[in-house]
Amino acid sequence: MKSGLSFLIAALRCEINELEQLARTSELVGTIGRLVHALQRERGLTNVLLASGGTRFAAERQAQIAVCLELEEAVRQGFDQLEADASRVGNGTRLFSRIAWVLPGLDALPDLRQRIGALGVPPADATNAFVKLVAGLLAVVFEAADGATDPEISRLLVAMFNFMQGKEFAGQERACGAAAFTSGRNDSARQQQWLHLIESQERCFQVFVDFSSAELGARWLASQPAARLAELERLRRIACAAPAGVALDPELSRTWFDCCTHRIDSMKTVEESLAAELRERCDTKTAHARAELQGHEDLLAQLQQEGGSESTAFFDVIPPDSATTSPTALGTGSPYGRQLERSILEMVQEQSQRLQAMSDELDTVRATLNERKLVERAKGLLMAHRRLSEEEAHKMLRQTAMSQNRRVVDVAESVLSMAEYLPIGKQN
Amino acid sequence: MKSGLSFLIAALRCEINELEQLARTSELVGTIGRLVHALQRERGLTNVLLASGGTRFAAERQAQIAVCLELEEAVRQGFDQLEADASRVGNGTRLFSRIAWVLPGLDALPDLRQRIGALGVPPADATNAFVKLVAGLLAVVFEAADGATDPEISRLLVAMFNFMQGKEFAGQERACGAAAFTSGRNDSARQQQWLHLIESQERCFQVFVDFSSAELGARWLASQPAARLAELERLRRIACAAPAGVALDPELSRTWFDCCTHRIDSMKTVEESLAAELRERCDTKTAHARAELQGHEDLLAQLQQEGGSESTAFFDVIPPDSATTSPTALGTGSPYGRQLERSILEMVQEQSQRLQAMSDELDTVRATLNERKLVERAKGLLMAHRRLSEEEAHKMLRQTAMSQNRRVVDVAESVLSMAEYLPIGKQN
Repeated sequence: MKSGLSFLIAALRCEINELEQLARTSELVGTIGRLVHALQRERGLTNVLLASGGTRFAAERQAQIAVCLELEEAVRQGFDQLEADASRVGNGTRLFSRIAWVLPGLDALPDLRQRIGALGVPPADATNAFVKLVAGLLAVVFEAADGATDPEISRLLVAMFNFMQGKEFAGQERACGAAAFTSGRNDSARQQQWLHLIESQERCFQVFVDFSSAELGARWLASQPAARLAELERLRRIACAAPAGVALDPELSRTWFDCCTHRIDSMKTVEESLAAELRERCDTKTAHARAELQGHEDLLAQLQQEGGSESTAFFDVIPPDSATTSPTALGTGSPYGRQLERSILEMVQEQSQRLQAMSDELDTVRATLNERKLVERAKGLLMAHRRLSEEEAHKMLRQTAMSQNRRVVDVAESVLSMAEYLPIGKQN
Repeated sequence: MKSGLSFLIAALRCEINELEQLARTSELVGTIGRLVHALQRERGLTNVLLASGGTRFAAERQAQIAVCLELEEAVRQGFDQLEADASRVGNGTRLFSRIAWVLPGLDALPDLRQRIGALGVPPADATNAFVKLVAGLLAVVFEAADGATDPEISRLLVAMFNFMQGKEFAGQERACGAAAFTSGRNDSARQQQWLHLIESQERCFQVFVDFSSAELGARWLASQPAARLAELERLRRIACAAPAGVALDPELSRTWFDCCTHRIDSMKTVEESLAAELRERCDTKTAHARAELQGHEDLLAQLQQEGGSESTAFFDVIPPDSATTSPTALGTGSPYGRQLERSILEMVQEQSQRLQAMSDELDTVRATLNERKLVERAKGLLMAHRRLSEEEAHKMLRQTAMSQNRRVVDVAESVLSMAEYLPIGKQN
């Protein structure tokens, strides 16, 4: 029969196992970030290729496809490694389900690229296909963040997910603006979509700042120099603050694209720093837990040598927390109980308090992810039942929130709770 | 490189793994319930033995100790099995930490029993020691319920935990009332404690009824015949509705003890039915998931034979949910994409929607556990900082809730959020 100390050790081993798994998942998240960045660039080049009738960026696009293929290989290997070690993956069910969704998307890329090469795809459709694929990859990252059991790592993964999502909105804004400037005019639907992309970006980067270290936040600010931001805002104003239908100077198309590209490329350096910090935190925490484990194992060996097993101190010590009833101590200060036994009980108490604190912090971090889930699900519901676009659904939630002086997430909850009252739209 | 279908299968395997783990945990919970019941009985007999100066129930107590030892052995084996299979235990860290806490308590039992046999322990201290041990065992059950990933099983485990906790309060009420009647009078502190035990019981059984099947709810009602309830309420009224310090008929001590014991024993049969239902649900769900897995594996074999791997249907299908951005389909209804590929994407969508629904339901079930955690933590805080007993802390929360017209859980949240403003009491 195993002793209490054995289970203290078992608990620590589980924790180490989870941390190691988190390190692998974090590594994969970094790799996914690189593939997403490459696909964003391919999307941009594809757009120009198609808009120019195949005359521009053909060679650059081919080179970029090679980069994408290499990174795709790395991501697929990461997926396979995860699957090979499936029994150790905490939230395997949901994570694998996300991967199962995105893999057919990667499988479908060669055919899509071939049709794009033959100029057989409208530019908007090509953009949408890449948007969908990137969204599928980001959903894997979201699930990785949602399944993290360590609050500090979870916090960094939430920061990472939001940064990647914000960067993707920035990429979509680049495409949206490029299409507007190239066509020489803007219309109100595109303006609305554009503003939505700006707002979504800012929301994501705010969460990133809130959840990442001060050092990373500073790095983020430094990566966005004022001069470039001023240029970005000037171009946004020209296209979006003007009345709908206003003529735009097509010459600005190149300026816009370069400005956005610089911005997105410098985002990538911040993302790499975040990925490095994630790796470093996982390693440090694992090393720390291992050292603690070693200490416990030494103590267990010592105990087994001494042959002591009964622990009369139990009834003198206050339980680790009061999630249990009536923690009344039996005759406090009674003299029985060996010092070593008492110290093991104290170790259990310490561990229990630490787990409780971790659990509380994890709840706080997860609340952000849950709010996101609620808003996205409410949007999905509105899109399906009222045949709205994502932008329209978001605008509807936001306007309701403003007029009722409530938070968007509270409105989203109301929408979900009255789902059965919504008209039923035709589903695809 | 693995296909999307492989990951659909991996997700299902994870789900089956979790269900099998839940079946083992549920089995252990049933065993713990049996040990708790035996310890409750030993506590009752010990009380009478000590109160009678060793003249009554000595033989019955020895027989009961033998029963306890056998069940303790079974529980320890269950713990060890869990530890041997640690890598498959979902919330191992917290669960093992709880086990690490309770094992020294079991280790300390022989010494406690010896001192009780020598009449060297005051009755109240003996009761408190058993209360503490049972609380430690129930904390393991709580953690098992909190770690369950399937909402239906989680629901039954929450019902089980609350039933066991309610039964424990009923056992404490028996001891409290027995002490009152035997002593021939009641005082206001004991009355308050008694009322607290009644109220706590009722809260637990209400959660049990809310979370278990209609059939079990009916069985629960049937197990508590009106005549026995009337007798119970009559005895409660005699002792508690009378002014503090009222004289009680010591002859009623036996009546009280038998009435409570009948009631608690019939609770045990309900608990066994609940344990059986838990087992049955785990088995049914595992069998169902296995059948689905077989179907997927057949499909995978068929696909591999055909040698097809590219999935051009991806860009035609709406993503499984909108936790990802811009689920814009590329030219809906475009003709490319094989039927089989499309059906796999639909399977992924179905799985994803099912997982989402499960996750939502799990959140609802867990909310109950979280509320409990908040209230217990707030009570613990008040007990530590203001040197209150558990009953006093609970009463304080309840009275604040009543006077402010808020829920107890909301008051508990306020208490926790202003923890640093509380006076610091001397801790043990």
